[in-house]
Amino acid sequence: MNETIDISSPLDPTEFAAALAQEHVADIVERLNAEPLERASAVLSAMPLERAAEVLDEPGLEAAADLVEAQPSDRAIALLKALSADQRADIFRHLDAPARERLLTQLDSETRTSLVQLLAYPENTAGSIMTTEFVGVPSSWTVGETLNHIRKVESTRETIYAIYLLDPKTKVLVKTVSLRRLIASEPQVSILSIAPPRRPVTVSPLADREEVARLISKYDLLAAPVVDKGGHVLGIVTVDDIIDAIVEENTEDVQKFGGMEALDAPYMDIGFVDMIRKRGGWLCALFLGEMLTASAMQHFETELDKAVVLTLFIPLIMSSGGNSGSQATSLLIRAIALQEVQLRDWWRIALRELPTGVILGAILGIGGVVRIAVWQSFGIFDYGKHWILIACTVGAALVGIVTFGSLVGSMLPFILKRIGFDPASASAPFVATLVDVSGLVIYFSIALIFLKGTLL
Amino acid sequence: MNETIDISSPLDPTEFAAALAQEHVADIVERLNAEPLERASAVLSAMPLERAAEVLDEPGLEAAADLVEAQPSDRAIALLKALSADQRADIFRHLDAPARERLLTQLDSETRTSLVQLLAYPENTAGSIMTTEFVGVPSSWTVGETLNHIRKVESTRETIYAIYLLDPKTKVLVKTVSLRRLIASEPQVSILSIAPPRRPVTVSPLADREEVARLISKYDLLAAPVVDKGGHVLGIVTVDDIIDAIVEENTEDVQKFGGMEALDAPYMDIGFVDMIRKRGGWLCALFLGEMLTASAMQHFETELDKAVVLTLFIPLIMSSGGNSGSQATSLLIRAIALQEVQLRDWWRIALRELPTGVILGAILGIGGVVRIAVWQSFGIFDYGKHWILIACTVGAALVGIVTFGSLVGSMLPFILKRIGFDPASASAPFVATLVDVSGLVIYFSIALIFLKGTLL
Repeated sequence: MNETIDISSPLDPTEFAAALAQEHVADIVERLNAEPLERASAVLSAMPLERAAEVLDEPGLEAAADLVEAQPSDRAIALLKALSADQRADIFRHLDAPARERLLTQLDSETRTSLVQLLAYPENTAGSIMTTEFVGVPSSWTVGETLNHIRKVESTRETIYAIYLLDPKTKVLVKTVSLRRLIASEPQVSILSIAPPRRPVTVSPLADREEVARLISKYDLLAAPVVDKGGHVLGIVTVDDIIDAIVEENTEDVQKFGGMEALDAPYMDIGFVDMIRKRGGWLCALFLGEMLTASAMQHFETELDKAVVLTLFIPLIMSSGGNSGSQATSLLIRAIALQEVQLRDWWRIALRELPTGVILGAILGIGGVVRIAVWQSFGIFDYGKHWILIACTVGAALVGIVTFGSLVGSMLPFILKRIGFDPASASAPFVATLVDVSGLVIYFSIALIFLKGTLL
Repeated sequence: MNETIDISSPLDPTEFAAALAQEHVADIVERLNAEPLERASAVLSAMPLERAAEVLDEPGLEAAADLVEAQPSDRAIALLKALSADQRADIFRHLDAPARERLLTQLDSETRTSLVQLLAYPENTAGSIMTTEFVGVPSSWTVGETLNHIRKVESTRETIYAIYLLDPKTKVLVKTVSLRRLIASEPQVSILSIAPPRRPVTVSPLADREEVARLISKYDLLAAPVVDKGGHVLGIVTVDDIIDAIVEENTEDVQKFGGMEALDAPYMDIGFVDMIRKRGGWLCALFLGEMLTASAMQHFETELDKAVVLTLFIPLIMSSGGNSGSQATSLLIRAIALQEVQLRDWWRIALRELPTGVILGAILGIGGVVRIAVWQSFGIFDYGKHWILIACTVGAALVGIVTFGSLVGSMLPFILKRIGFDPASASAPFVATLVDVSGLVIYFSIALIFLKGTLL
């Protein structure tokens, strides 16, 4: 989209930094991410302090903590002071314990206090992603006073588009006003009089960032104030931070749904051993679960020996159950995440999935029967003289398994949520494993009904 | 979070509307979504025009087009005129053809021209979600002139936080300035002098909304200007619209990954027949694919007859291949969506997935061998006198299939993208189906190598 200056790597760090001077900070971050740490650190050192701080302030910068650690002590402190409070806290979270201790003691007490406060909030809560740099003014001020104040503090605030009106005595949040309203109003008017009549939308510092995202998206906010139980504003979460959070949550959701631990770093940046660990854990757990299929098959050994023809359809039948389950799970994971359905609605969903599963199973069942009939009639394969009974077994099993798959797949996210897990942990492979084992039992039980006295 | 007024449904629409007067517009939308169309329309009629337009302006309102259609003609026209351009276009997209014709002819020519222009852009492009109500000023103005202009037009603009500086003669976009910079600058200063030195970030009207989301997220924008080839601003896409788009895209991605067509409506609002159609299509396609497993099994009929014991591990082995494939696919879908990897990087990924697959397969393979050895040694199940060879077959097959699954799963999103499809169409069931058929062939081929002359 934008013109980019072609900077081949052999450039001296100082020249590199100079060439980057006019680039958008997000593009500089992209360049630095592509460089080895040592070189990136040298380029960062060669930048003016203010510009370097802007670069470090981007959540997209991958090795931000390492870069700060690699800077000379004085420079590191100056950079940390120039950072926004939320990004500073984020960098501290990723520092080694010794570096954290060392830098923490060198910070001025005001910065340190705010930092320690932010670090106390658990990861992925509103408190952990908020910044303390917001515009808060006494609700007794006029529009003109407020605008003057904003002009003075503008450079040290994360956003000035949302202004928080605080009770002059208790400092409790009274209203939120947009800069837009301020601009459109007369300077001598009381700021309280131009505020919307509604209570401001707020979040608790321990709210999940997904909840913050939902509120910001629902109410089209540019920032959401984080308030304590007494109603005091602790900080704000801005819309650009929340977009990053939403994108990250999505990646995690898709990766979890794919049946693995979330990576929390770009694919190419994950070490080989880490990758094996993140994928191997779930893969082994699913493997242990799937071992039950071997046990189930061993249980039906006599039937298998008598009617090997039944085994031909095992993969077909099992996968259909897994597929219908995976569809239902993906539907419900999103419906729960978007709060389209509540936990207490589970029976409504079950009542919908039951007929849906029966119809879908019937469609596939007819397909299975037709397939056997065609192969038999045209002499492509001989299923033996009882082929009609086998066709009925396969057809009925498909109805049973697809229905079962839809039910299990749709209920699993509810069950996980009920017992306190993330509904998004219900992965496609997890559902398939659940359905596979019971699918085999359903298949062989139906076979026993149809084929007892003939094949079995 | 907010106090909500308890409004039980028997309330008269006028009282209902009055009770809602102080609520946040997003909360009103939630209430109306829960009401039947007729009642929602009556409540909307009872609201002041301005408030009703605010409600209709929310993308979260589900039956917006039906609601407009249900209003008296005069009121419908007044409402449409009061709407923002992007939401108006969106409502028109959902109107029946007769209603669209009827309302279009009644609109004033200016509104109609802008509407027809927006309706011409294909769905999900920047052009289709942009609004034409932005602040554009000649780049020759001063800060003070610009602020005065903003004060005048504020109420008719979607956002005033991004100001677009246009060449006074050619009207071409020169720079973008934030309201923030304006506020912090002296009124007599030229607006061009306070603009950042960089070229503004822009998108083409035909860019996918995912691309717009990526830019807004990367550059932390509050709005992205949509420009034609000559550099004229056609409209802007604001951050709140893009959040809705991101959330929608995620839902689609998860649903597609679950192996179905995206629903494009909340779970509970989809009719039964629609639901069957959206799920049945893919389910049948996958079923047809899985039928190849029956063909593969039939091909190995002789081997199956001789060694029924091999069938015991078919579900275990097949599912392991599907699971490793599903993991790899979910990783690559996100990596491609976030542009962490490019199409041309496919071989890098293949070179990573190959050893990853071998190691993961070896871990599961050892698990499989141990399982057979333990069951045999403790007399839980008798796999026959050649049990060691069977264990080797299962172990080797797992290595082969998990490696194959990881490779296929990681390459599929690339192949789909290369041939012009959405990489996100690579669903977990799709990958599982691909891996199942070839997995069977791998399993029986390895069995032939190990068991030729003994069991086979």
